[in-house]
Amino acid sequence: MTSTVTQPQTSQPQVVEVSTPRVHNLHHVEVFTPKPNESLDFFTRVLGLHETHREGQSVYLRGAGEWARYSTILTEAAQPGLGHMAWQVAEPDQVEGWARRFRDKGVEHKLEAGGSRFAQGDTLSFTGPFGHRTELFYDFERYEPEAASKLLSQPVRFPTPGIGARRLDHLNITARNVDEARDWYTDVLGFKLREAARTPDGDIGVWMSVTSQVHDLAIMRDGSGERGRLHHIAYYLDTPETLLRAADTFVEEGTPIDAGPGKHGLTQAFFIYVFEPGGNRVELFSGGYPIHGPDWQPIIWDGANIEKAIVWYGGQLPDTFFTVAT
Amino acid sequence: MTSTVTQPQTSQPQVVEVSTPRVHNLHHVEVFTPKPNESLDFFTRVLGLHETHREGQSVYLRGAGEWARYSTILTEAAQPGLGHMAWQVAEPDQVEGWARRFRDKGVEHKLEAGGSRFAQGDTLSFTGPFGHRTELFYDFERYEPEAASKLLSQPVRFPTPGIGARRLDHLNITARNVDEARDWYTDVLGFKLREAARTPDGDIGVWMSVTSQVHDLAIMRDGSGERGRLHHIAYYLDTPETLLRAADTFVEEGTPIDAGPGKHGLTQAFFIYVFEPGGNRVELFSGGYPIHGPDWQPIIWDGANIEKAIVWYGGQLPDTFFTVAT
Amino acid sequence: MTSTVTQPQTSQPQVVEVSTPRVHNLHHVEVFTPKPNESLDFFTRVLGLHETHREGQSVYLRGAGEWARYSTILTEAAQPGLGHMAWQVAEPDQVEGWARRFRDKGVEHKLEAGGSRFAQGDTLSFTGPFGHRTELFYDFERYEPEAASKLLSQPVRFPTPGIGARRLDHLNITARNVDEARDWYTDVLGFKLREAARTPDGDIGVWMSVTSQVHDLAIMRDGSGERGRLHHIAYYLDTPETLLRAADTFVEEGTPIDAGPGKHGLTQAFFIYVFEPGGNRVELFSGGYPIHGPDWQPIIWDGANIEKAIVWYGGQLPDTFFTVAT
Amino acid sequence: MTSTVTQPQTSQPQVVEVSTPRVHNLHHVEVFTPKPNESLDFFTRVLGLHETHREGQSVYLRGAGEWARYSTILTEAAQPGLGHMAWQVAEPDQVEGWARRFRDKGVEHKLEAGGSRFAQGDTLSFTGPFGHRTELFYDFERYEPEAASKLLSQPVRFPTPGIGARRLDHLNITARNVDEARDWYTDVLGFKLREAARTPDGDIGVWMSVTSQVHDLAIMRDGSGERGRLHHIAYYLDTPETLLRAADTFVEEGTPIDAGPGKHGLTQAFFIYVFEPGGNRVELFSGGYPIHGPDWQPIIWDGANIEKAIVWYGGQLPDTFFTVAT
Repeated sequence: MTSTVTQPQTSQPQVVEVSTPRVHNLHHVEVFTPKPNESLDFFTRVLGLHETHREGQSVYLRGAGEWARYSTILTEAAQPGLGHMAWQVAEPDQVEGWARRFRDKGVEHKLEAGGSRFAQGDTLSFTGPFGHRTELFYDFERYEPEAASKLLSQPVRFPTPGIGARRLDHLNITARNVDEARDWYTDVLGFKLREAARTPDGDIGVWMSVTSQVHDLAIMRDGSGERGRLHHIAYYLDTPETLLRAADTFVEEGTPIDAGPGKHGLTQAFFIYVFEPGGNRVELFSGGYPIHGPDWQPIIWDGANIEKAIVWYGGQLPDTFFTVAT
Repeated sequence: MTSTVTQPQTSQPQVVEVSTPRVHNLHHVEVFTPKPNESLDFFTRVLGLHETHREGQSVYLRGAGEWARYSTILTEAAQPGLGHMAWQVAEPDQVEGWARRFRDKGVEHKLEAGGSRFAQGDTLSFTGPFGHRTELFYDFERYEPEAASKLLSQPVRFPTPGIGARRLDHLNITARNVDEARDWYTDVLGFKLREAARTPDGDIGVWMSVTSQVHDLAIMRDGSGERGRLHHIAYYLDTPETLLRAADTFVEEGTPIDAGPGKHGLTQAFFIYVFEPGGNRVELFSGGYPIHGPDWQPIIWDGANIEKAIVWYGGQLPDTFFTVAT
Repeated sequence: MTSTVTQPQTSQPQVVEVSTPRVHNLHHVEVFTPKPNESLDFFTRVLGLHETHREGQSVYLRGAGEWARYSTILTEAAQPGLGHMAWQVAEPDQVEGWARRFRDKGVEHKLEAGGSRFAQGDTLSFTGPFGHRTELFYDFERYEPEAASKLLSQPVRFPTPGIGARRLDHLNITARNVDEARDWYTDVLGFKLREAARTPDGDIGVWMSVTSQVHDLAIMRDGSGERGRLHHIAYYLDTPETLLRAADTFVEEGTPIDAGPGKHGLTQAFFIYVFEPGGNRVELFSGGYPIHGPDWQPIIWDGANIEKAIVWYGGQLPDTFFTVAT
Repeated sequence: MTSTVTQPQTSQPQVVEVSTPRVHNLHHVEVFTPKPNESLDFFTRVLGLHETHREGQSVYLRGAGEWARYSTILTEAAQPGLGHMAWQVAEPDQVEGWARRFRDKGVEHKLEAGGSRFAQGDTLSFTGPFGHRTELFYDFERYEPEAASKLLSQPVRFPTPGIGARRLDHLNITARNVDEARDWYTDVLGFKLREAARTPDGDIGVWMSVTSQVHDLAIMRDGSGERGRLHHIAYYLDTPETLLRAADTFVEEGTPIDAGPGKHGLTQAFFIYVFEPGGNRVELFSGGYPIHGPDWQPIIWDGANIEKAIVWYGGQLPDTFFTVAT
């Protein structure tokens, strides 16, 4: 998997083989909150994330199954919303590889040396076509647990804290034109389309991934005219039963539940959506399905199928699900 | 994700991005059985696989969550064991890419055009360093369900059959020298080492993957002196509870249980191992954990930790677990 | 547990221990269906009940965890609804004991010798205060499995059929005046009130039991003016996860889902409600809680609590839940 | 269900009808521990019980699903073992009813007025035929939660603490002669035999109940010649998955696991057995099955069936399981 360099074999223009840049996985997300204390209490005590750092207006958090220093940054801001999303590339040289590609394709970007962000190496930053700030990097500091589990592959001891949020799973962002967004993320960044909700007027939602997950990134239609908005961030729970227990806790806590528990046909997600105190929607997610083959044929839900795509089982989604983004 | 070629913009050395050959995912396995009828009954009625084809002495089967024509071939033979394992590569041109690499590295291999195997495209075949027959390919025929599920991403209708074996998950093979095997699979085929059981005399087991799974391929020490042997093939079950129900069925059926239900520290596997009627060990597996980052540090179990690596909870493994391979 | 008579040892008043008649447990229910074939297919193939007998317009069914010849009778009729409910008494002599009590209290009733109903012994029949036909008996024939499970306490072999309906759990009937119904079932039949939904205008629902279950019988307010109506019959599923799998099957089958999956605050029920083809509502139920002590204080949900009583989590209940009974 | 008193209708010797005394349910247990601090830490922090009182050398604890002031008393003592077991009777007058019966049957006993024990009313105490101290009572103080759950029927708020021990489920005691013990508990105390492990030399274990549980009390053969010993106390966990999570915690904590997770054929118990720091065996239990009918036929495991009775699935039980009692 390492990049290889072949020696030139002729006197013709030197050919250097470099590995094709790949976005490898979602790494972390920055979320803006106008209620930083309440949000922090929710993400730590209720969801069970663990604070590892504070800097400026930001608190850095990691989940019980995450070995990186953080997967979630809570940053105080006037309005809730997406600070940025950060993705890891497949090889160290691909940060520069993406910069080269972006130069070729005319994508405005900025390359900064490691150290410009807490725990993060050389970083390429840019803004997506619908206003979402994005970073690409390879190097990241590992979390070293203070009290190591006897289960060496797990960065926390049992019992895992809070409702059991294990790791950041995916993001769902919005775009005015989902078809254009889909094409940009697939053509420019190399995402694979996994599922789509399609109407004669174009896609109203697309679910894409760079990993074997059915989605690392979803994009849903935004009728508001605003840019760079977030529909939700999602954390993984180990089992459907864990999610039902989480629901008990949310009801007890008085956490506003937007929808669920229920199951989407789309992505086979067993879901519950809540609003964290800062106003951002957070999904707790279990289920889904892996896509291991490289030759997946996207699942297209259209016509009469769309109803089952949205709710496979569980109550109908509320209007807020389709109108509220941050 | 296709390889792209950027045009040179200067007279400086031309940069050519090439698609580095990657083994992308485990696709299927051929298992030899001296009791083909009994094995077929077990794999279909009990495990719930679905027969899609017969040819020669072989029956082709797929799991309830698999879109390929088959993931499992049962082939009548005098002795149980591994027929071959077959892996999909990341891009169509990588079958040829691997052939080029093998030529460079002196690995004996054979390249055959599509059609030489049922449902499978151009195929590169070779034998691994400890005698395991292996195939690499990209193109494979998709399974088209006769009675489609309303859940469009699922190739069978609910309720899924048998105990719910959803897909082939991983293989566990044996080698006389695990250190050598580990190095070959990582250096030549590009597997990433995820976990290992290490003694002062070398590794006694290694767990490696090319996907985000904690293991697609495990190799355990074989003291028998024989080559090309199989420890077990493993199918994924959706949840731990599904596995407990499977255990009920195995007991009722009189299926010989080798070990479990229990949990290994290694890979966090919630497991049960049984012997199918032909004598091969089959694992039903749930749990594990995903590795999404490209920079995983292998988990090394050694010294006093090895006990928990082998059995995190559940009864001790029987001697047969360490002595019987096929 | 049989009544014993102690001999007087002094000239003081003689003490006689008597076996106070007790309704001991819900035993079976007869359901009317205008679509007997479709209903039978649903109760057997989908729910997994097992047919043991046919007689007249009736088919007799039992669940995978039931040792009696039947718990459910499907009877062809012009309209869906409740045929009758049948309860077992604590001791053989209590059939006559209840007849004596009914005579004392002026409850119209009929006593018939064993053999008047398939598999059932001496039977006392009467109609409840809101029109529900009811039977009391002690003796009942046991189901003798043809292919016994190795798990001797289970009357079927693994895997259990269909979605896993294990046993009839409870009934929910309707009454014009719930307060009067509650008082009659507690005062006359000895039910214990476990939970109630209470308004200033009286109870709108009561949940009562004679066993350690939180409810064997629920009564909800019926605004229709009709008598003898059924809100739903409920079967027990082993776990919440079993119920989620059942939901998958109902969606696939196109079974109309009235509500759920979700959880009521009332009784802690994890529920899904569907309509069987004959039009009767059927609940699949898991969870709840046992009441082992004899001194339970009824849980009263009123005022602002009623919302959580009805839906603890899950989508809001549809209007049909409150308006459709059969 | 209230006891009724009929007035004498003649001038002949006065007859007083009273309800037949019934042992209604297991209420609490007192456990001796030579390591009171360590035991308390285990029962509270790990199991999740809640301390409600201290008195003398005893600490009083209740589970997350228990409405009584306590279900478990930890009492410092030189040796681990059973202090006493305490059962609730069905009606207030049955404490006196049992005293009357014991007088008739020549069972030595002591009747004490309420207040002699914390939170407990009038109490009849006696020692069973194999040395187990036992109490019968009706009145008991209710636990009033300081921070009430919105789920009114649950005495604690979500998330429930520790591993989720919800309530004391049953006791398993030992006797030199199980046949004699079985007969005494059924004939004198009215327990119903539910299951037995039977050899030509007599029963080696019996599982009996007074509730709809498959066992409230088990008695196993004790070859030690000692009296009044305890094999284990058992707490209920909501689901099998909860028990698997508990196993993770026990391994992490270093709690000695005696056996499991596994499933007995006997009682269909999904179990794990650990030793609490004081040396007593504690079972965490899920599954089982309810017995609602009054006419249960005991399940007898004998001959070749006994193996499956002991271990349905899971590793073989260790010798300690059969030799260690306290």
